[in-house]
Amino acid sequence: MVLNFQQIVAKLNQFWSDRGCSIVQPYDTEKGAGTKNPHTFLRALGPEPWSVAYIEPCRRPTDGRYGENPNRVQHYYQYQVLIKPSPNNIQEVYLDSLRALGIHPEDHDIRFVEDNWEDAAVGAWGAGWEIWLDGMEITQFTYFQQCGGIDCRPVSIEITYGLERLAMYLQNVDAIMKIEWNEQLSYGDIFLQGEIEQCTYNFEASNPELLLNLFSLYEQEAKQLIERELVIPSLDYVLKCSHTFNLLDARGVIAVTERTRYIGKIRNLARQVAHLYLQQRESLGFPLQKV
Amino acid sequence: MVLNFQQIVAKLNQFWSDRGCSIVQPYDTEKGAGTKNPHTFLRALGPEPWSVAYIEPCRRPTDGRYGENPNRVQHYYQYQVLIKPSPNNIQEVYLDSLRALGIHPEDHDIRFVEDNWEDAAVGAWGAGWEIWLDGMEITQFTYFQQCGGIDCRPVSIEITYGLERLAMYLQNVDAIMKIEWNEQLSYGDIFLQGEIEQCTYNFEASNPELLLNLFSLYEQEAKQLIERELVIPSLDYVLKCSHTFNLLDARGVIAVTERTRYIGKIRNLARQVAHLYLQQRESLGFPLQKV
Repeated sequence: MVLNFQQIVAKLNQFWSDRGCSIVQPYDTEKGAGTKNPHTFLRALGPEPWSVAYIEPCRRPTDGRYGENPNRVQHYYQYQVLIKPSPNNIQEVYLDSLRALGIHPEDHDIRFVEDNWEDAAVGAWGAGWEIWLDGMEITQFTYFQQCGGIDCRPVSIEITYGLERLAMYLQNVDAIMKIEWNEQLSYGDIFLQGEIEQCTYNFEASNPELLLNLFSLYEQEAKQLIERELVIPSLDYVLKCSHTFNLLDARGVIAVTERTRYIGKIRNLARQVAHLYLQQRESLGFPLQKV
Repeated sequence: MVLNFQQIVAKLNQFWSDRGCSIVQPYDTEKGAGTKNPHTFLRALGPEPWSVAYIEPCRRPTDGRYGENPNRVQHYYQYQVLIKPSPNNIQEVYLDSLRALGIHPEDHDIRFVEDNWEDAAVGAWGAGWEIWLDGMEITQFTYFQQCGGIDCRPVSIEITYGLERLAMYLQNVDAIMKIEWNEQLSYGDIFLQGEIEQCTYNFEASNPELLLNLFSLYEQEAKQLIERELVIPSLDYVLKCSHTFNLLDARGVIAVTERTRYIGKIRNLARQVAHLYLQQRESLGFPLQKV
């Protein structure tokens, strides 16, 4: 039986739950990647063990193509797994997760292509691979080296599945909007109109002056919340800075020379939040125990 | 076997999927209720059939108690079902969903207590019941009469489970933070520290002047996006107005006389978005077919 989109999510939840991951929910503010959910961005730090899996809606304004490109959209879903410390057999476990979805690695050309990953705006990077299935990238595998500019000890493994790519492959369809969400509806039935509208917003209709104004208000609030040592509330505003920067970027109003400055501002805030979190966990005595 | 929190979510997803609901994801912006997710707020409108179920993180700043009250938190999860048109046997189906969770109605005192529901800020209301299980409210049942101030034709049924209440009941624990999220972690392990911090933010640390500023920027952007007839982008900003109002309210800076004015502003925007959506669906020829 070929899985529909909602079945893929349920299968991955079941698979990673069976392997000891907590199944948690998307974070309720706009973000460009599952890495920015505090379940990853903060929990990857410090000596406490942590195993988690979740689906995450992502917004990447510059990637939008008004629903006209079969493979590129400004809103899509990642499936994110983070395990600290990284188990030795994680590559085998990952291949088992493909088997659970009905993809038998022995029948396919599966390649682990070296690809070190970095998200400069949140000071996160790691060594890892893209995983290619018969010529299509379906997953990113990363051993987290730093998060918020802080060394990760122990190192976590982050696995990020591109759910739409997996679904297109499994269902043998040639466009994201043609994916069967379930028996009744396609991905396009649910999301196409919103995709077109958000592209219009991102590229044409957003008010750059207002966004610049929002960015500086968010930055200001993040700073005062960091001073008060409120980790999660300040992270919320860092995420808002990050998404607002992405909107400004899509609108084409950030000069090349300014990009670095903006990214630096966000990275600086993210680093402070990461430091606060680690201090806080230490002062709580690392309640989840050290690895 | 007593279900842990993540198993309850998986069971409800499976149950409602088996009954033809699309299983979708939380919406990635802060909101006070699952009703505000466009999968409900917009899709409840118009003649097209729609059956959907999802978990939704909710933020209700005024409900926070710094994690000290066993039953009240400012962030919690609803499980939301919306079916249009409402099936005749929906009460029976709902009771079956309790059976799937291990609650056998014949062994318990289950009451449907009349309770008409209203969310004035988004112009939504309906006739319905609270469902009480052995003296505790676990679900809200609402036949949607209006959404965004527009008559719902046909009428949808909205079922909103309070997941923490259900979990406390099933697991026989006396505080939300004691709920078993899964075999390894409690709800408190994952959320207590964030709950305390967000309460500090909501009640003490947020900057009211900055929030007032954000409210008016969000309102301004919603208005210009409504003029451009961009439904989803404008709804995003209406949701931001709504959440910002809730933050201002928790901070105690909105005078009684101003409350009505703010709620009126949000309702007015929500109504315009709802009208736009309905016009748009009509101009698209109601692609999901009329009921």
